[in-house]
Amino acid sequence: MIFDPATDKPQDECGVFGLYSPQPNDLAWLTYLGLFALQHRGQEAAGMCVSDGEKFHVDKDLGLVTQVFDERRLDGLRLPNAHVSIGHVRYSTTGSNLRFNAQPLTTRTNKGILGLAHNGNFVNAREVRSAMLMEGALFQTTNDSEVMLNLIARESHMDLIEATAGAMKQLKGGYACVLMSRHTLLGFRDPHGVRPLVIGQREDGAWVLASEPCALYAVGAKLIRDVQPGELVWFDRGGLHSLLVEPRRPTPCSFEWIYFARSDGELDGVDIHASRIRMGEQLAREKPVEADIVVPVPDSGIGAAIGYARESGIPFDYGLYKNPYAGRTFIAPTQEARELKVKMKLSPTSAVRGKRVILVDDSIVRGTTSRQIVNLLREAGAREVHFRVSSPPITHPCFYGIDTAARKELVASTHSVEEIRELIGADTLAFISEPGLRQAIGGQGLCGACFTGEYPAGTPLLNDVDKLALEV
Amino acid sequence: MIFDPATDKPQDECGVFGLYSPQPNDLAWLTYLGLFALQHRGQEAAGMCVSDGEKFHVDKDLGLVTQVFDERRLDGLRLPNAHVSIGHVRYSTTGSNLRFNAQPLTTRTNKGILGLAHNGNFVNAREVRSAMLMEGALFQTTNDSEVMLNLIARESHMDLIEATAGAMKQLKGGYACVLMSRHTLLGFRDPHGVRPLVIGQREDGAWVLASEPCALYAVGAKLIRDVQPGELVWFDRGGLHSLLVEPRRPTPCSFEWIYFARSDGELDGVDIHASRIRMGEQLAREKPVEADIVVPVPDSGIGAAIGYARESGIPFDYGLYKNPYAGRTFIAPTQEARELKVKMKLSPTSAVRGKRVILVDDSIVRGTTSRQIVNLLREAGAREVHFRVSSPPITHPCFYGIDTAARKELVASTHSVEEIRELIGADTLAFISEPGLRQAIGGQGLCGACFTGEYPAGTPLLNDVDKLALEV
Amino acid sequence: MIFDPATDKPQDECGVFGLYSPQPNDLAWLTYLGLFALQHRGQEAAGMCVSDGEKFHVDKDLGLVTQVFDERRLDGLRLPNAHVSIGHVRYSTTGSNLRFNAQPLTTRTNKGILGLAHNGNFVNAREVRSAMLMEGALFQTTNDSEVMLNLIARESHMDLIEATAGAMKQLKGGYACVLMSRHTLLGFRDPHGVRPLVIGQREDGAWVLASEPCALYAVGAKLIRDVQPGELVWFDRGGLHSLLVEPRRPTPCSFEWIYFARSDGELDGVDIHASRIRMGEQLAREKPVEADIVVPVPDSGIGAAIGYARESGIPFDYGLYKNPYAGRTFIAPTQEARELKVKMKLSPTSAVRGKRVILVDDSIVRGTTSRQIVNLLREAGAREVHFRVSSPPITHPCFYGIDTAARKELVASTHSVEEIRELIGADTLAFISEPGLRQAIGGQGLCGACFTGEYPAGTPLLNDVDKLALEV
Amino acid sequence: MIFDPATDKPQDECGVFGLYSPQPNDLAWLTYLGLFALQHRGQEAAGMCVSDGEKFHVDKDLGLVTQVFDERRLDGLRLPNAHVSIGHVRYSTTGSNLRFNAQPLTTRTNKGILGLAHNGNFVNAREVRSAMLMEGALFQTTNDSEVMLNLIARESHMDLIEATAGAMKQLKGGYACVLMSRHTLLGFRDPHGVRPLVIGQREDGAWVLASEPCALYAVGAKLIRDVQPGELVWFDRGGLHSLLVEPRRPTPCSFEWIYFARSDGELDGVDIHASRIRMGEQLAREKPVEADIVVPVPDSGIGAAIGYARESGIPFDYGLYKNPYAGRTFIAPTQEARELKVKMKLSPTSAVRGKRVILVDDSIVRGTTSRQIVNLLREAGAREVHFRVSSPPITHPCFYGIDTAARKELVASTHSVEEIRELIGADTLAFISEPGLRQAIGGQGLCGACFTGEYPAGTPLLNDVDKLALEV
Repeated sequence: MIFDPATDKPQDECGVFGLYSPQPNDLAWLTYLGLFALQHRGQEAAGMCVSDGEKFHVDKDLGLVTQVFDERRLDGLRLPNAHVSIGHVRYSTTGSNLRFNAQPLTTRTNKGILGLAHNGNFVNAREVRSAMLMEGALFQTTNDSEVMLNLIARESHMDLIEATAGAMKQLKGGYACVLMSRHTLLGFRDPHGVRPLVIGQREDGAWVLASEPCALYAVGAKLIRDVQPGELVWFDRGGLHSLLVEPRRPTPCSFEWIYFARSDGELDGVDIHASRIRMGEQLAREKPVEADIVVPVPDSGIGAAIGYARESGIPFDYGLYKNPYAGRTFIAPTQEARELKVKMKLSPTSAVRGKRVILVDDSIVRGTTSRQIVNLLREAGAREVHFRVSSPPITHPCFYGIDTAARKELVASTHSVEEIRELIGADTLAFISEPGLRQAIGGQGLCGACFTGEYPAGTPLLNDVDKLALEV
Repeated sequence: MIFDPATDKPQDECGVFGLYSPQPNDLAWLTYLGLFALQHRGQEAAGMCVSDGEKFHVDKDLGLVTQVFDERRLDGLRLPNAHVSIGHVRYSTTGSNLRFNAQPLTTRTNKGILGLAHNGNFVNAREVRSAMLMEGALFQTTNDSEVMLNLIARESHMDLIEATAGAMKQLKGGYACVLMSRHTLLGFRDPHGVRPLVIGQREDGAWVLASEPCALYAVGAKLIRDVQPGELVWFDRGGLHSLLVEPRRPTPCSFEWIYFARSDGELDGVDIHASRIRMGEQLAREKPVEADIVVPVPDSGIGAAIGYARESGIPFDYGLYKNPYAGRTFIAPTQEARELKVKMKLSPTSAVRGKRVILVDDSIVRGTTSRQIVNLLREAGAREVHFRVSSPPITHPCFYGIDTAARKELVASTHSVEEIRELIGADTLAFISEPGLRQAIGGQGLCGACFTGEYPAGTPLLNDVDKLALEV
Repeated sequence: MIFDPATDKPQDECGVFGLYSPQPNDLAWLTYLGLFALQHRGQEAAGMCVSDGEKFHVDKDLGLVTQVFDERRLDGLRLPNAHVSIGHVRYSTTGSNLRFNAQPLTTRTNKGILGLAHNGNFVNAREVRSAMLMEGALFQTTNDSEVMLNLIARESHMDLIEATAGAMKQLKGGYACVLMSRHTLLGFRDPHGVRPLVIGQREDGAWVLASEPCALYAVGAKLIRDVQPGELVWFDRGGLHSLLVEPRRPTPCSFEWIYFARSDGELDGVDIHASRIRMGEQLAREKPVEADIVVPVPDSGIGAAIGYARESGIPFDYGLYKNPYAGRTFIAPTQEARELKVKMKLSPTSAVRGKRVILVDDSIVRGTTSRQIVNLLREAGAREVHFRVSSPPITHPCFYGIDTAARKELVASTHSVEEIRELIGADTLAFISEPGLRQAIGGQGLCGACFTGEYPAGTPLLNDVDKLALEV
Repeated sequence: MIFDPATDKPQDECGVFGLYSPQPNDLAWLTYLGLFALQHRGQEAAGMCVSDGEKFHVDKDLGLVTQVFDERRLDGLRLPNAHVSIGHVRYSTTGSNLRFNAQPLTTRTNKGILGLAHNGNFVNAREVRSAMLMEGALFQTTNDSEVMLNLIARESHMDLIEATAGAMKQLKGGYACVLMSRHTLLGFRDPHGVRPLVIGQREDGAWVLASEPCALYAVGAKLIRDVQPGELVWFDRGGLHSLLVEPRRPTPCSFEWIYFARSDGELDGVDIHASRIRMGEQLAREKPVEADIVVPVPDSGIGAAIGYARESGIPFDYGLYKNPYAGRTFIAPTQEARELKVKMKLSPTSAVRGKRVILVDDSIVRGTTSRQIVNLLREAGAREVHFRVSSPPITHPCFYGIDTAARKELVASTHSVEEIRELIGADTLAFISEPGLRQAIGGQGLCGACFTGEYPAGTPLLNDVDKLALEV
């Protein structure tokens, strides 16, 4: 039995959330709302911890936020005087599917009890872990949060803020973390700001940290600003504090704008929905084609399809129905079964019958799903199918927390665009250019390592890369 | 704890499905696929029965198709030589939420063991039930299928086909049913064809009945034709048989095209997606307004919004993000909580900021959700909100299986359009006209009782109407 | 996976319970307590219904009482003004393991809504069912309660009491039933009183019906008397009413005293524990043997072992430890696995080492378990094992609700005592005589059909017997 | 909702189990059987880990062994070439009820991955834990196993055996542990042997460690010998190895013989069942009384009651029926409810009616249950109730893993025997003397700290004792 959405998208993001409330609040409920808004960033596990300064409640499990936190379990997390909480939704990155790897990770240390949740990946976690093992440390999970916690705990002479800043300097990679003690909420972002983290505040003064603004809105908070690359922020009775630990050239992950982030927010000052429209417009300028309608692959291709239609003047239409109940059904892992899953999820409407169709999607990873969608459209009577992709070809793996499949499975790392076109059976195929993407997103800098192989925040040691490839 | 999607749509449809396969097939699995495609027609319970001519397996429970039929329970329904099956998804109509009311209903009769599943409502079920109670019948459920089965069983001198035709003549209302014995699959539709039922066939010769074509496609079948109003069809070794029992003027339910049916099919010869585009175009012609963008209420308003944008020349844009995980979360039933549910489901994008927005939805029932959506747009910076609805005002309850709320809750039965506009806070509000809707859908006839109060297939006795009102 | 206690006892009893409370009471809770006390009579399913004169709540499912009725489900059955309730625990008799066959069975009839639960078996249910099918009745279960309810409903001109009395006259066999309408609790016992039913009353005036006195005590009621063979009793605002419908020679089932009933009660005036002591004493007189200790097979052989030890003067000792957690574990149905189950349940103590052991059990059905127990004792160092059984050899099947295995599996129907002794590997083997058993139990009459083949309440038609044999 | 058996016994034991098999075996299944046999030692959580030398599978959860390890989860633990495994059943000792505290605890260390499960308590765990926290260690649980694992991991220059021996020297208290790496099974017992651990071997050469012999028998192994106080044993390809690390005067816990251990085994050379008989005989000699029958409180009082009856010549009888389904039901924690629980569990038989009863139980902790049992007997007609207890009065708390309630709740620490007698309402009350108990058990030495306050293996620092008292 395999639970697997009929998808061929980059995966393995996580979402983090945190709250510091000067006055008592129902933080378990607010954290639930925040995690629910971040559900698209991880469907495999959910967890949270809540403290009132004395008690420290934690619960986490495999499943969706609404599956893990039923009414009874949410009640078990409630504290009348709660003022700090963090939460996490997870799609497995490194570390297997075990329940024991769910986050937040909680532990007793010489700085009191701590809870930590992270999004992203530390590229040198293995070396650091090995060194600490030799010094007598235990590792009860394969979760990288445990490495971070050990680094923090090891500095027994420092206070929590100093020790966290010290740990940030030692761990390389792309990450955004929320950390709590009984009294303080901390958040920090890697030196390049590869993974996102935003700060919000409610009218009652409560501070919020989240991977995306939607989770701020979900708890009635306003977006204040993004945590800066390399910045450590913390919240206590004194309000918001900040320390720039290791600021470097900002290179936030471009895939947040292409696909991951919800379209109702902005990150690092760039609106998600508007940037997707611009990607479609740019694509239409770069890769025009004569056709009758522009059709998105729902839901992630909608923004770019609207932009493409707008720039090209070709009518936008809904050519693919998406079954809202798809995603979680059991199917034997045969090729026939995988094709079935696409059919259970997407179904062509009459809009494509007899039409020359421009099909807009945000990315192609392995190409298998794309082939089936093209095929569905042809069976439904589309005369031509012109495939347009609002990201450049993905040729390199991500080491900063995104699972883009192993390199050998990335169709664009081993095939030319023409070969991919043939593979997926489209009449034409074109990707947005990398400069075109950067222009569409705007902003200062971007990580495009998966398109270019240039990794701003370092890579794992070579033998680790090999191991990762073997393990996938 | 209340499970309630943040919705204000007409509800309470059901979906039916049936298979007759001359050669052995994995009917449990095919029925699962068919029901999964019909999931949008009922999320409260799912069930199926399967027979190989001797054994007769049945399983049903509260929950989504994928929740009820996990691998183990699906295995329990499998029969190596299965050749008949039926299935059902349900949103509670008359009869409460009890597990005992899940369908199909199965029973031993003098015609052997029978399984029945229906969509719709019998308006004279209470009278027939009362008469049969007096004659000594038992009713173990409040499910109307049981009345139909008693009518069939009572005619002990007739065969199954005759007895079913006889029962069709006695029960009034709008309905579509699938019925199976160990050897035969039957399907029938009320005299006016209010509720839909289509016939399909697979390449291997297996016959399929379903509420919508999408379920045919889901099992690899082609659409052959609709079951005719008042027609009884059955399938056995001799193939497809038909009997026109009570054909009357066809008046299929207009809400199938407005909202219920999936956009990837056609019913009674009229394509769903194309008709929704036409509704939007008609609405733009009837109720034009100056504005900057046309925004759908996702997902059901998309087709009409595209049509409206196309006819008016005003750009289509995505102004509301819909959380795909919304729908099933527990919230206390307070007003504040209901508003929260809308916020957990819908969230404005930057597209509406500073814009004059035409918001397109398919219907307004109580108006509460509409007010919140208008409010969300204003908070996000929309300068004007012009609400356009692709159905006429709903002023009367449905007695044919759709729960449109009790009449006193129907905002349009007690308020003028201007009053509703004020209530929901829109700058302008307009509905498609009833003739305009008929023209957009096309076809021969339509039931528009909920707009006009003219009930083609009769109404319950008055005191039943009152009781229904009291019970809601 | 097979859930199967390591047992070779007669099985398939059920337990019934009912309450009529003139003043409001928490009947859901009291019924829960009553059913919990009757849990030993059926572990496969549990159910109850409760009414306050208007509402009629029912819930039932597969599982133990404490598994089915968790706090939430029990709350769902609570009614502030409840005054009637019935409940049932079930071990599957006729009718398969389906959830749909759980009791009580509830149905709407011309006498209002009714709930029925029964213990026992109607030997002519098939004929009655066939006749009613021909008349147009539906049967949604294979539960005999449905036949009884159809008989009651068919007499639409009679009131509930008359109609129930009429149904009692038509159904033959051994049974005890509780039946409730919204206002009245009824109880009745077959003409021979084969199955037990007792009446109790609480200090607050509430009346109780139950299969055994332990369930009366569990709800704080005192034992008033047994329902008489062939008697129909009912309770309403007027208190207790009685009608002797079909009294015949009383022949209560002897196995209630041998094995079924809890030792803390009495039935038909005969104390259970005391009668078991007398069975052991009688056995010691009839079948003495020289030995060092008397060891019971726990727990059902304890009473007889005490009696045997007392009469013989040979010391009683605990030679077999019984694991209190045994009974419900999954094991593959191989011979090796079945032996494993006995080992997981029973384990010898040092008491038997080097001893001549008299092992006392209440019955031998197939003999397989007995062989393993003898073997366990020998492995633990018992020098001799003398097997003594406090029931006569079981040579005939029971048609009154007890599953004693099909006749061909009854070891005593195909083997002599000496052959059985050899089979189980005991040094000596002896059963109590049938007259000895009758004398030990005392009372007026007894059903000993399984020892003698004389069936006081009739047998099914021969072809039914064959079918039963085939189906087992 | 409170899950709480109607018991007033010393609690909080755990059970440990381990296997080393030179040839591949189904260790998951064998560990399941072993844990099932030890179920009486802990009903709150169960867990196991299994390794084949490479993979290391672990699973654990709250619940009974048969609840945690259903077929699917057991399958998840199976490894074709498994050769090492350990398992644990737990009743919460120090550390709360959290799932995270279930054992075995597994961790990656510089000695490879390790799994540890323990029974008992380290009296200086807090001090050791505090010191390690200061050095930078993390503690993710409140489970003392984690302290032991940190001690082992800290000695990065030693091998696993040396490091374990070193850890044994640093942790004080009463404990028995099983520990596994991918290749080796270790077992060790505290210097005084307070907690039990036995060694067994199967015919196929597999070695077994378990808290009691019953678990050896459950997997087809023979008892080889007890692990000696202060001994460390380990098993690898070279067979059994032993190191006497810290042998001190043996003082095994006397309550293993009084109550904890199953009657079908022996510990430290002393048979459990036989010693209970001797306790009863000794009690009869020390505290005789004229009476008609001797009645045990089932099941734990049976052995002593038989001994008392044998020595006194007064007939043994079964005066209390014990509901085998009692123990796990939800009840509100009111006084009335607690009394209800006793009634749901125990019920008097007719044996006590009109009799002078000697009631034999193994211990009295708080006295509340005893009072109710005496009351039940009186209500059932007992003329006199003489309470005899086969353990001396419990006046001191246990610090070696047994929860005897906080000292102030121990009725015997604040009341004289006469006061207790009055409290429980018995006609007479007598306990076995402490020398009498020692004589009945025999053997070399015994820990009787809970009777005498003399703690052979040390006590926690005073402030810890106070904290413990506060926390209970």
